[in-house]
Amino acid sequence: MHSIKQLQEIIVKAVNEIDYPAQPKELYQPIAYLMSLGGKRLRPALVLMATDLFGGDVEEAISPALAIELFHNFTLMHDDIMDNAPLRRGKPTVHEKWNASVAILSGDVMFVKAYKLMIQVRPEILSGVLEVFNKTAVEVCEGQQIDMNFEVRQNVSIAEYLEMIRLKTAVLLGGALKIGALIGKANAENADLLYQFGENLGIAFQLQDDILDVYGDPEKFGKQVGGDIICNKKTYLLIKALELAKDQDAKTLELWLQQTNFDTTEKVEAVKGIYNRLNIRQIAEEAMQQHATKALQALENIDVAPENKSILLGFAEMLMAREN
Amino acid sequence: MHSIKQLQEIIVKAVNEIDYPAQPKELYQPIAYLMSLGGKRLRPALVLMATDLFGGDVEEAISPALAIELFHNFTLMHDDIMDNAPLRRGKPTVHEKWNASVAILSGDVMFVKAYKLMIQVRPEILSGVLEVFNKTAVEVCEGQQIDMNFEVRQNVSIAEYLEMIRLKTAVLLGGALKIGALIGKANAENADLLYQFGENLGIAFQLQDDILDVYGDPEKFGKQVGGDIICNKKTYLLIKALELAKDQDAKTLELWLQQTNFDTTEKVEAVKGIYNRLNIRQIAEEAMQQHATKALQALENIDVAPENKSILLGFAEMLMAREN
Repeated sequence: MHSIKQLQEIIVKAVNEIDYPAQPKELYQPIAYLMSLGGKRLRPALVLMATDLFGGDVEEAISPALAIELFHNFTLMHDDIMDNAPLRRGKPTVHEKWNASVAILSGDVMFVKAYKLMIQVRPEILSGVLEVFNKTAVEVCEGQQIDMNFEVRQNVSIAEYLEMIRLKTAVLLGGALKIGALIGKANAENADLLYQFGENLGIAFQLQDDILDVYGDPEKFGKQVGGDIICNKKTYLLIKALELAKDQDAKTLELWLQQTNFDTTEKVEAVKGIYNRLNIRQIAEEAMQQHATKALQALENIDVAPENKSILLGFAEMLMAREN
Repeated sequence: MHSIKQLQEIIVKAVNEIDYPAQPKELYQPIAYLMSLGGKRLRPALVLMATDLFGGDVEEAISPALAIELFHNFTLMHDDIMDNAPLRRGKPTVHEKWNASVAILSGDVMFVKAYKLMIQVRPEILSGVLEVFNKTAVEVCEGQQIDMNFEVRQNVSIAEYLEMIRLKTAVLLGGALKIGALIGKANAENADLLYQFGENLGIAFQLQDDILDVYGDPEKFGKQVGGDIICNKKTYLLIKALELAKDQDAKTLELWLQQTNFDTTEKVEAVKGIYNRLNIRQIAEEAMQQHATKALQALENIDVAPENKSILLGFAEMLMAREN
């Protein structure tokens, strides 16, 4: 078994060693650029942890782990165009630094590169691994589309929101783990349980994101606290507040959502005040906890020695306790 | 053996029967729309013809053939955004009918759908088929990038142009045929020869496109004759003319290329006049013929009964004799 730190070192080293062709440079420089911006590398680490959990050969899981990280960054490159995002990890996005055409085409070739790395698994599991990868990729796209649809919709329910984040964020954690499990020769039942662990952890992870955006420590958060409130992002917190707010709070919240000219600090404070009165933080934390618990139950039911699970357990706890 | 007509009927039927999920509709309707606009379905037909050539089971080749057609249409969907094209097959492009975000994301999911169909080959050839598909996909992206680079470059050589069209257009014909060959249990040598046939046929096909754009019969061409001249597209004809033109012709050609305000008919006639004086049509036809001959030589060298080759031979002749 490897420690989280060892696995992350393996990933960082492997990411740094990815070789990109020199030409055409407009196609490959943006990929190298985006990949160099860092990030937590959670998803590839999950592939390795899953292989390790079942006593598989971690070396064998490196290419598929890189495939998952490339796929994730491909979705970021394309999502950033669609969301018109100027920054990614504090640096100019690819469509800002180059242009939208470059970001579209570099993203496409990045996706192929992901497949090229993914097919380096053992022939006997290739078909199974690709089934998981394809299903995950489709769902991530569906999640992004539903998220964009939410932006122009009036009413979004909590159930719809949870389904959206399941698709957009959580299935990739589940998929990464399941692919690692297949490499580690897990049986179908254990692989599915690990998928459930990842899926629920992913939902909890996104809920944590929503909470941190409002209640994070500005010193540690790394982004502007209240960013979601400022741009009316339909997060778990806002949807729940819209569901629960009555009378004056409901009116005030509606007013802030319609405001186009405002002082951002004032808006964040006002909306946060409503959240506080409605106990939104606690409700969101309970929802997060529920999914974390489901994740841990799935992990517990996996049929391997309990001591092997300690790394994934520690990883889940680290994710839930994070401050950025 | 099947006739071309039979194979095309199989393809048309299979394309019509592709099942797209209902939701999110912004993701799947554009795919169904683009696929419904028709087109020659050359590439999927090539997959079936290649399988048939080696006595393979054509039924087995249908899913990979659809994968090739979906991949081709995915590249069209994304290229049309980059090229800012308003029309595709005479109908609004996806980014025009919906918007660029929809065209990006629908294209992405279309690409995954292509992989989903491609992995339905026999397990023992899966890895080989995906290697061809991935390599082809990367090269098509590279070709598109190089084509975009040409738009803003002053000098492009004939050799560079041929390499660009090889990547952007020809390798997909080669790839489609090679995948069909693998399904038909061709040996490596025959599969490579068939790839060369497709690659050279693809280059000849694109040169034919360049020629038709200027010398096509307006009644049969289906598009505006001279479209490439109007927008200064660096085709084989223009690059060759720039290489050969001297004195007054060179000056006149340069002037037309720099003109921003002009009568389109006048420009087309003037540039065509220069092409005629320089014998450009004949030179281009010779280049096309050269690649067609290389293609037919490769086909001839394939180790199967000559009568089995008649369909691919007929197909190549049909492509070279086409008027649109």
